[in-house]
Amino acid sequence: MSAEPIATDIAIIGAGPVGLFTVFEAGMLKMRTVVIDTLEATGGQCIALYPEKPIYDIPGHPSILAQELIDKLEAQAAPFHPQFLLGQRVEGLERLAEGGFRLSTSAGRQVLAKAVVIAAGCGAFGPNRPPIEGLSHYEDRSVFYLVKRREDFRGKRVVIAGGGDSAVDWALSLREVAARVFVVHRRAKFRAAPESADRLEKLAAAGEIEMVVPYQLHGLEGDAQSGRISAVIVATLKGETKRIEADALLPFFGLAMTLGPIADWGLNLDRNLIAVNPATCETSQPGIFAVGDIAHYPGKLKLILQGFSEAAMAAHAIHPLVFPGQALHFEYSTTKGVPGA
Amino acid sequence: MSAEPIATDIAIIGAGPVGLFTVFEAGMLKMRTVVIDTLEATGGQCIALYPEKPIYDIPGHPSILAQELIDKLEAQAAPFHPQFLLGQRVEGLERLAEGGFRLSTSAGRQVLAKAVVIAAGCGAFGPNRPPIEGLSHYEDRSVFYLVKRREDFRGKRVVIAGGGDSAVDWALSLREVAARVFVVHRRAKFRAAPESADRLEKLAAAGEIEMVVPYQLHGLEGDAQSGRISAVIVATLKGETKRIEADALLPFFGLAMTLGPIADWGLNLDRNLIAVNPATCETSQPGIFAVGDIAHYPGKLKLILQGFSEAAMAAHAIHPLVFPGQALHFEYSTTKGVPGA
Repeated sequence: MSAEPIATDIAIIGAGPVGLFTVFEAGMLKMRTVVIDTLEATGGQCIALYPEKPIYDIPGHPSILAQELIDKLEAQAAPFHPQFLLGQRVEGLERLAEGGFRLSTSAGRQVLAKAVVIAAGCGAFGPNRPPIEGLSHYEDRSVFYLVKRREDFRGKRVVIAGGGDSAVDWALSLREVAARVFVVHRRAKFRAAPESADRLEKLAAAGEIEMVVPYQLHGLEGDAQSGRISAVIVATLKGETKRIEADALLPFFGLAMTLGPIADWGLNLDRNLIAVNPATCETSQPGIFAVGDIAHYPGKLKLILQGFSEAAMAAHAIHPLVFPGQALHFEYSTTKGVPGA
Repeated sequence: MSAEPIATDIAIIGAGPVGLFTVFEAGMLKMRTVVIDTLEATGGQCIALYPEKPIYDIPGHPSILAQELIDKLEAQAAPFHPQFLLGQRVEGLERLAEGGFRLSTSAGRQVLAKAVVIAAGCGAFGPNRPPIEGLSHYEDRSVFYLVKRREDFRGKRVVIAGGGDSAVDWALSLREVAARVFVVHRRAKFRAAPESADRLEKLAAAGEIEMVVPYQLHGLEGDAQSGRISAVIVATLKGETKRIEADALLPFFGLAMTLGPIADWGLNLDRNLIAVNPATCETSQPGIFAVGDIAHYPGKLKLILQGFSEAAMAAHAIHPLVFPGQALHFEYSTTKGVPGA
């Protein structure tokens, strides 16, 4: 689980749009970056919450899909070769005697950085996990909170739990490859796009998908060692249980937000927001900055475009920490260009 | 010259990228806007100084030409139907007893607005005018600082003055339609793209363009009443003059910046920058806001992207002036959409 510490200039916590643009702004000032995010992919809230909704207030984009915006921000950051540590949470943050910080992640990685930029949005996103005993033995082995490759489920008996769009859409999709698809929901009504819910109902009536309603997840049977489940146990509210033989469980109960360990770093917090100096985006802890939705100051608006501006301010404020005594000659990008451009 | 006053919510001074984005941010809050600019076209510095240079630091645009950015910002503002008063300068600004302001422009237009946003960049741009007596009689009639339509010069004897790209490029272009093209420059060397300068030299050697070097503009002959010139008088540094019979003079001596009457409005100015409250972008004069390069506060960076953020802050701060007592329910554009979208 452990590896050599990664030495960098700025550790950016959060790979959402503002975190990604911080990579660019840091890069323009010749500072290296490592970006850490709990999610498995870049994009933060944009991708986790509304990947396919158009955004109208990104300046210079009359309308852009969240995924498209993230792709463009990644392309803009790419010339500066940021290192991404995804699917892991920053668990530890330690100020070093010689200056700078050591961060450690839930995946056992360590990052040594001269400054930290928290671009964590509303906090860390993680799947809402069902309260099932022994669940962690099976996670990422036969219990999954997202589908990376549909093919992984070919020929499998799949139990999908949940009543929203994700549950319905994946039931419709996976029944095309899976041996059998079960949908566990505590009531007959689904909070999903009406057309999809209709299709689910029709496929259930035709016996192509098996509805397990009104039931909730109750337990798992399987081999904890290998992480393979053999059955999912479901129960009604009255406690009547039922056993479904299955190879995989996909619980789709939405995403939870939590500030996580950031809450313990001695920052000036107010309702999960971090107070910053509006001239620099520095927090109450020297060397630790916050930008984007998590940062707060008088006049703050939770707009992506304002986070972009904060990213620029933070990068300029960090420059003397990375290059002490070196004057920063401000140049326009039209004059300077970017590496490799 | 006069017309009915235009009643609006916000008078925006400056049609550069930040002024245009202020239209959008105001529109999202249901506020109407009038945009006034001394230049004949939108785009401000972007277009006046570097229309064809790529910009690399617009978030979500890894590389974009200034003209393309302006086009997109105009498209983004368009659903809110801003009214543009171009080619005119704000000459007067009067605070009204009943609240709000009356602005008057050099073209005799009047605007009644509840708030003013100064997005004037480095100030008003205007062409550097050669020091020639009686020049104003001929301006826009046979003396032009920009070429609107190349066809206007077909069959004409055209004198171009200047040593930069504009002078060289227009000499190369207009000689294809003009009867004769003269290039007046105080020295033989041109500060232009080497390839263009080479072409100019070759065409001059071939007698297709007449170089008038080393000369400077000295005077005009013509009919002041009709505004038609008959000749351009040029002189060497020693005072030797020469007379060139001509129908049009195009002086290309670059653009000058001046804060103009804004300097007299009682704002808190420091080296042509306007100090604003960073939480609102309001100046020392209530109801008058400043955004973009002209606005200053601790941590200010002269970046377009920071101006975008200021535009959003100013619009939110102006909302209670336009809709007193009305609570502003903050919504994301992904939820709210835009009119006509």
